[in-house]
Amino acid sequence: MPGEALPPGSIIGIIGGGQLGRMLAQAAANLGFRTSIFSPIADDPAFEVATFRHQAAYDDRPALEAFARQADAVTFEFENVPVEAIIAVERHTPLSPPRVALEATQDRLAEKRFLASIGLPTAPFVEVAGSDQLPHAYAEMSAKHPGCNSYLKFARFGYDGKGQLKIAPESPLEEALEWLGNNSAVLECEVPFSFELSVLAVRHRSGPIVFYDPPRNTHRGGILHESFVPAPISPAIEEIGQSYVRQIADALDYIGVLAVEMFFIEGGDWPAQLLINEIAPRVHNSGHWTREACAVSQFENHIRAVAGWPLGSTQRHSDARMVNLLGAEATEWQSLLEADPMRSLTLYGKRDARAGRKMGHYVELIIQGR
Amino acid sequence: MPGEALPPGSIIGIIGGGQLGRMLAQAAANLGFRTSIFSPIADDPAFEVATFRHQAAYDDRPALEAFARQADAVTFEFENVPVEAIIAVERHTPLSPPRVALEATQDRLAEKRFLASIGLPTAPFVEVAGSDQLPHAYAEMSAKHPGCNSYLKFARFGYDGKGQLKIAPESPLEEALEWLGNNSAVLECEVPFSFELSVLAVRHRSGPIVFYDPPRNTHRGGILHESFVPAPISPAIEEIGQSYVRQIADALDYIGVLAVEMFFIEGGDWPAQLLINEIAPRVHNSGHWTREACAVSQFENHIRAVAGWPLGSTQRHSDARMVNLLGAEATEWQSLLEADPMRSLTLYGKRDARAGRKMGHYVELIIQGR
Repeated sequence: MPGEALPPGSIIGIIGGGQLGRMLAQAAANLGFRTSIFSPIADDPAFEVATFRHQAAYDDRPALEAFARQADAVTFEFENVPVEAIIAVERHTPLSPPRVALEATQDRLAEKRFLASIGLPTAPFVEVAGSDQLPHAYAEMSAKHPGCNSYLKFARFGYDGKGQLKIAPESPLEEALEWLGNNSAVLECEVPFSFELSVLAVRHRSGPIVFYDPPRNTHRGGILHESFVPAPISPAIEEIGQSYVRQIADALDYIGVLAVEMFFIEGGDWPAQLLINEIAPRVHNSGHWTREACAVSQFENHIRAVAGWPLGSTQRHSDARMVNLLGAEATEWQSLLEADPMRSLTLYGKRDARAGRKMGHYVELIIQGR
Repeated sequence: MPGEALPPGSIIGIIGGGQLGRMLAQAAANLGFRTSIFSPIADDPAFEVATFRHQAAYDDRPALEAFARQADAVTFEFENVPVEAIIAVERHTPLSPPRVALEATQDRLAEKRFLASIGLPTAPFVEVAGSDQLPHAYAEMSAKHPGCNSYLKFARFGYDGKGQLKIAPESPLEEALEWLGNNSAVLECEVPFSFELSVLAVRHRSGPIVFYDPPRNTHRGGILHESFVPAPISPAIEEIGQSYVRQIADALDYIGVLAVEMFFIEGGDWPAQLLINEIAPRVHNSGHWTREACAVSQFENHIRAVAGWPLGSTQRHSDARMVNLLGAEATEWQSLLEADPMRSLTLYGKRDARAGRKMGHYVELIIQGR
């Protein structure tokens, strides 16, 4: 890459079989592509809507190679794919986003170092390589930011609030020491943010980048609950957020949809009004409303980017509110739809509605002047 | 039916595997349903996005029964399914729209008689049961409507301008006699209409009916070329169109999406400003823009109706233009998208781009005030 755009009928391979893979496969099918899912989990929801299925472990080399050889381009729906699997795939087939984007974001320490290397602001943090280092790190943080709540976050495999422990100021460290063990972690100072927002971008392999309007996000129990567009921020703040994401995307020579969660801070002693929380090198939960409220959705634009197609407009025609349905909440589909015919419901086809599991979401359009 | 709404995870069976079946299957998957396609054609595009496939002939009773028994509800994507196949299916599984809707519309004579029976206006026509009756029918039409162009239309299996022959006034009937043979047909007088529009409705099995804004349609070579909303008609005309469709839907005890093509006549000697051209007891090509421009699309609302779910809002947030891509036109996808990023492209995944075949379409949103 760059090279020719992939013609319709080509096979888009997607690593990971969750709801993001499912919606990517649906978007790819809509453009006339065939789709192929690689996932270790037999009843993953993306398998049901894909043309081809490869169910195998991420260390199953022959299966990875068969998947890669069949596909004309490969992408991934989550960043915790083992790098060895990615290397095995990209030996045979173009991969986007590029591996470096996954390597820079699947480890919190690597991500913080990457952001620091390009001069972008994050919440204050100290590296912690196992519980031995925690007391010193904690003392350092307390000295610099007296009275702040700290979050101890595993460097690897954290998402949706998992792999995080809150430490109140002055509290004893015993629990944290035991919890951390020999794992690498980041000790982060909790910043007094007004709200979180996501900047969602799509970058074409030839360089151009387009942005969706950033949503304001709210969480429940560490998991995204609601995204609302427009976020209550000024055009100047929005431009700053976009410039951060442009720097990240350009530094990674990125291809596809990139989502960056940021804390918006109304004022006070903090060094910036936007601090970067997390980078997701993929389509993102906080962008689901783009299917209902934009000319071209994040899913379609990601596939267009992966296939080398012209990007579509990210223009938003309506205000929108996206609400996640976790666990048993999804069983309320009937009353949710009866309550408001403007709700567009998406269910992921998951059988097991365990507590906290993302089962679906709905989007309410707020149509002006009609 | 009525009865309980089908829970997510249920299987929606769709008879027919073309692009309408494909988009219905995609909409059903989005609501968390599994899907099953029945079609005789191995490479039909709907198979690729469905959970289960039943490839068999329409007179293959065991295959029809296996399909019906597996599904929790069945619908169809085109009205030329043999009635015997429908009877075999509905013996096992609830079918919607109801069989009577298919019987009333798959034969032009039956359709005209049905419309006459409920007092709805059509273009003037004479029944022709084979070429023996053609000279008398033609004389009758010429006496009533001197100088009108006539269309001779096969009673069965006509669509997209197929099965039609134009007869200019005063022209010899030899060609028409040979063309018709022993087939049943309708001899129709061409009306001087300003344009065609479609009234698209969705009826819930408990009776409520909702309407999409009617598009204005243009054709090329007898095949739909473009649909545009809003059509340039007054609210009063729109209400008349809706009242016609409500009468049709109520008379058929209809469930699902119903599309009725109408001629709009600006004035003059004709008895009505809206004449009914054709009824399609299914989702319709002229409603494809509802996916991009409405809160809930025709495809999702059809599935909601079939499953007994609450209907979604048909509210339109943007003006829109839908353009069909026939045959080799679809190979121009790249330049079509480069020309305008507001274009949302849908390709049906068909391999063989023969002339006149519907390969895809695109929708341009016209977003106000941004």
